[in-house]
Amino acid sequence: MSVNEKAGDNVYIGVDMGGTNLRVALVDPGGKILDSRKIDVRIDLGAEAVSESLAAQCVSLARAARKNKLHVQAIGLGVAGKIDRAGTVLFSPNLPPLDGYPLGDELRERTKIPVFMENDANVFGLGEGFAGAAMGMENWAGITLGTGTGGCLILGGTLWEGDGLGFCGEIGHMIIEPEGPRCPCGSKGCLEAFASARGLVTGAERLLTAIGAQSGPLYDLWRERALSSGSMYECAKNGDPLSIALFEKLGWALGIAISNIFTVLGIRNAVIGGGVSAAWDLFIEPLQASLSQSLSMLDPELALVHRASLGDSAALIGAARVAQIGIGLL
Amino acid sequence: MSVNEKAGDNVYIGVDMGGTNLRVALVDPGGKILDSRKIDVRIDLGAEAVSESLAAQCVSLARAARKNKLHVQAIGLGVAGKIDRAGTVLFSPNLPPLDGYPLGDELRERTKIPVFMENDANVFGLGEGFAGAAMGMENWAGITLGTGTGGCLILGGTLWEGDGLGFCGEIGHMIIEPEGPRCPCGSKGCLEAFASARGLVTGAERLLTAIGAQSGPLYDLWRERALSSGSMYECAKNGDPLSIALFEKLGWALGIAISNIFTVLGIRNAVIGGGVSAAWDLFIEPLQASLSQSLSMLDPELALVHRASLGDSAALIGAARVAQIGIGLL
Repeated sequence: MSVNEKAGDNVYIGVDMGGTNLRVALVDPGGKILDSRKIDVRIDLGAEAVSESLAAQCVSLARAARKNKLHVQAIGLGVAGKIDRAGTVLFSPNLPPLDGYPLGDELRERTKIPVFMENDANVFGLGEGFAGAAMGMENWAGITLGTGTGGCLILGGTLWEGDGLGFCGEIGHMIIEPEGPRCPCGSKGCLEAFASARGLVTGAERLLTAIGAQSGPLYDLWRERALSSGSMYECAKNGDPLSIALFEKLGWALGIAISNIFTVLGIRNAVIGGGVSAAWDLFIEPLQASLSQSLSMLDPELALVHRASLGDSAALIGAARVAQIGIGLL
Repeated sequence: MSVNEKAGDNVYIGVDMGGTNLRVALVDPGGKILDSRKIDVRIDLGAEAVSESLAAQCVSLARAARKNKLHVQAIGLGVAGKIDRAGTVLFSPNLPPLDGYPLGDELRERTKIPVFMENDANVFGLGEGFAGAAMGMENWAGITLGTGTGGCLILGGTLWEGDGLGFCGEIGHMIIEPEGPRCPCGSKGCLEAFASARGLVTGAERLLTAIGAQSGPLYDLWRERALSSGSMYECAKNGDPLSIALFEKLGWALGIAISNIFTVLGIRNAVIGGGVSAAWDLFIEPLQASLSQSLSMLDPELALVHRASLGDSAALIGAARVAQIGIGLL
């Protein structure tokens, strides 16, 4: 009996392919996680090894499902970067060996289960929209604050895909300050240069250099090569004004980005998630202040900025939702 | 026989209610203007007088149509500002006496013809999309450079209306430079502060003050209270570097706005119209340069910025299209 032979109620596998961890979950049609696994991504062993261990995890999960009389109808594969829905990773900033690799195709061949791919920010949007903070919202913008800044748009209740150019909802690359800091994308003053883990760290380095710092908690972190969004958060919570200023700048930039999106799209809901959103208490007030100041068409009281509610699970539930939508369209 | 009694082929009346002129046209279902009239708007005589003369023009046009065996099915009324589709002008920056006036309702009562209202930027979008530069385009952003800067979004081939908040596509109030010049809306550094007739004039005043100008062609215009987008265009064409710089700044700001829209929406077409777009030759190169520099997700060669092709007629054809769509939805 094949691993995906019809054997009971339909379920989906959601895969979150991150830079360090690979997580897979069995998700029911209502968005509930039934089972999940997490393994290290050994990208140092090459793309083929990653592809093999991904398939092994999925096969194992599908077998476990079958024992419980569940049938895995499809796999949804969320990967950071630019992807080709057909099954190839076009460009993955966090997993460079995967660039151009037919990860989806191989998973389909190895598991004999239909596979649908989507980028991580869209997967986040589908997850939060299906079972999280954006449940029932027709029109909203999603922003993920991670190593970089991801984004997605849900319009009319579905993931907006634009002209199908291979990118969409790239809120992190809206320009907030044209003469602002250089972003890895090549432009200056993108949202990502302020509102991401990498933006916080490079912002700290720039600030410390600009003021010629020789001491202080942020300087110590820098010298110890221990700057990260997490260590900077601790630093800010302990009262360090430089760290506090960087989280305030993050909130300020997000407020302008969200204002511009609301103004252009005539919408009023945004959902913010991703690892750096754990610093919510440090940036939400400056965000609201900057949003209120920037919004000229909408009463600021009608503008709603929600905190994502699914945490890490958004990626797994969203990836399963990609599978569910994909199989429905076949 | 009533003016709108069925008497032949269906046609529509499109109305362009501007700050100085009122234009009405008879438009066939294919977007062709069959007849048109233009009268002065005597807003000094009050809202009721304007409403009366608007109705008189429409009645006269409907009668003329009937003589040609044409039947006016509906009137589309384009007005600058925030409007309530039901028939009331909520806020009209160019015609303040109309604020809160039931212009559409009165027109309906006086003519006995169904009336549908829409704001001027959306009317522009519907006109250019139906019979102009954007014919056949699925997804695009429209920008009108007039006294202020209007905008609209066409997504999936239809006018995008967002959450129905009474505004949408307000591209003129995207913030381009957070510490930039104050916009009449209250925010700083909006696109409109750079890319509109008013933005050009206030930009000239600011520039002349900042450099302490005591002579020169732009200074002379200022002293003579003759600053306008038209006189500044002439000045720039005669080689005045200050005027040239202001049109370059206009192009620069438009490039960033369009880049942000393309990046967030994953689209690649924009159409620019409005009176100030007559200065196309002065701003299109700086616009393209700034767009290319700002776009990180899209190959700049795939980004298309089109010049609107219908001129003043976009408003009339678009307003007639509002009528045509409106009657189809009844």
